[in-house]
Amino acid sequence: MNVSHMLESQRVRAEIRAGRITGTSRGLAHGFVQCNLAILPKEHAFDFLLYCQRNQRACPVLEVTDPGSPVPNKLAPTGDLRTDCARYAVYRDGVRAEDRTDITELWRDDLVTFLIGSGISIDGALKAAGVPTHKDRWVLRTRLPTEPAGPFHGDMIVTMRWLSPSQAITATQVTARFPFNHGAPIHIGDPAAIGADLAAPLFGPPVPPTPDGIVPVFWACGVTPQSAAENARLPFFIAHAPAHSFITDLPASALMNP
Amino acid sequence: MNVSHMLESQRVRAEIRAGRITGTSRGLAHGFVQCNLAILPKEHAFDFLLYCQRNQRACPVLEVTDPGSPVPNKLAPTGDLRTDCARYAVYRDGVRAEDRTDITELWRDDLVTFLIGSGISIDGALKAAGVPTHKDRWVLRTRLPTEPAGPFHGDMIVTMRWLSPSQAITATQVTARFPFNHGAPIHIGDPAAIGADLAAPLFGPPVPPTPDGIVPVFWACGVTPQSAAENARLPFFIAHAPAHSFITDLPASALMNP
Repeated sequence: MNVSHMLESQRVRAEIRAGRITGTSRGLAHGFVQCNLAILPKEHAFDFLLYCQRNQRACPVLEVTDPGSPVPNKLAPTGDLRTDCARYAVYRDGVRAEDRTDITELWRDDLVTFLIGSGISIDGALKAAGVPTHKDRWVLRTRLPTEPAGPFHGDMIVTMRWLSPSQAITATQVTARFPFNHGAPIHIGDPAAIGADLAAPLFGPPVPPTPDGIVPVFWACGVTPQSAAENARLPFFIAHAPAHSFITDLPASALMNP
Repeated sequence: MNVSHMLESQRVRAEIRAGRITGTSRGLAHGFVQCNLAILPKEHAFDFLLYCQRNQRACPVLEVTDPGSPVPNKLAPTGDLRTDCARYAVYRDGVRAEDRTDITELWRDDLVTFLIGSGISIDGALKAAGVPTHKDRWVLRTRLPTEPAGPFHGDMIVTMRWLSPSQAITATQVTARFPFNHGAPIHIGDPAAIGADLAAPLFGPPVPPTPDGIVPVFWACGVTPQSAAENARLPFFIAHAPAHSFITDLPASALMNP
């Protein structure tokens, strides 16, 4: 492929595939949709797709591959789902058993890959509207039950941002325009009202007390389906490692509703 | 149930169940979402759900029941999918073999029901915006291929409306606010550009020539998944009979994006 004609998303995937980019995907290939991955044997694919349909705010499915195919034809036709994430988490019996930088050796003909919209994708739209996106942001468990399907179940995982009141209003308007990418907030204000667990964010230290003049705003998070897959205790499934999302060729603006 | 506390949707379903309403659902229980039904054995459910995911504009899935359950818990918890459509079409080997007013005798433990948003649901929003909805409206085959999944495939079915230019602009704006219910038009103008078959609408006589000053506007239609299921030549599936949709308790406004 002629490098000068490559999309930035293609260039970054090639760097990851070659092992030259090994960190998180945050900030990479700005403006392109990033996806969370769930890779499951076909026998569980109906229940998982149904779980996503029933919990669409948290689990916006952007593409599902045919069984055995490592190529997301719609979102990244030159991509390879076995090599193009910088880091994969391999689960056995519901437990994260090992991380890998390449899952080619684990690939099977019955694996179906779900590409699920990541909140990272709308950072650009928020930033353009003057809403800070890289700080004061946490991923939290809540006590909002999701609707189960087959073995998949669990409470909703949310992204919480600390915003000023006017930023909260702007952020609500901006994200409402992305109905296929988590959409508008699911809650605003008191974290206790949805049972958000401030003591144990999924990543990093506990959340400090909310400063005066700050409004916590909560969005459904694409980690929810991964959590549901953990809860299902499947013998085998693979996910992207947190914050190591798959970069697609889809411009983030393509998901924006007018 | 105390009749005075019934929703209009519940009252109409009860009338249908009792055989006192036998005609089409058009105009019934105004303001409540109506759904097209596809009832399939579980062995085909993953491929069908995947077909709908891949062709979301035409196939907005609003609920999928658990196998064997005749109750759509989310959309109509007091409903019964075996009795509450006025007319069902029973397909065998891809052919509409018989119509029934009740499918209780055909029910099986492995049947999964898909409730798919019908364009009928947004008539109210269009009418409120001054766009006529009950006349100069056709359902047509096109030559726009849908994305296949397993055995499900075929060209997109569309709803064409004849509108004035200003109505076309208003209708585009209004329907864009319903991203989970066919959304904005998929085409505007020359029917030949999408291969729309004006000679043979799915219902009624051929479409007359387009009058001067009229803009044909086309929306993806919920008959598309039914057509794909016919093309799959499944040994057995059941659909609502055309225009005899299932009436849910969901207010149409609940599907509106801000």
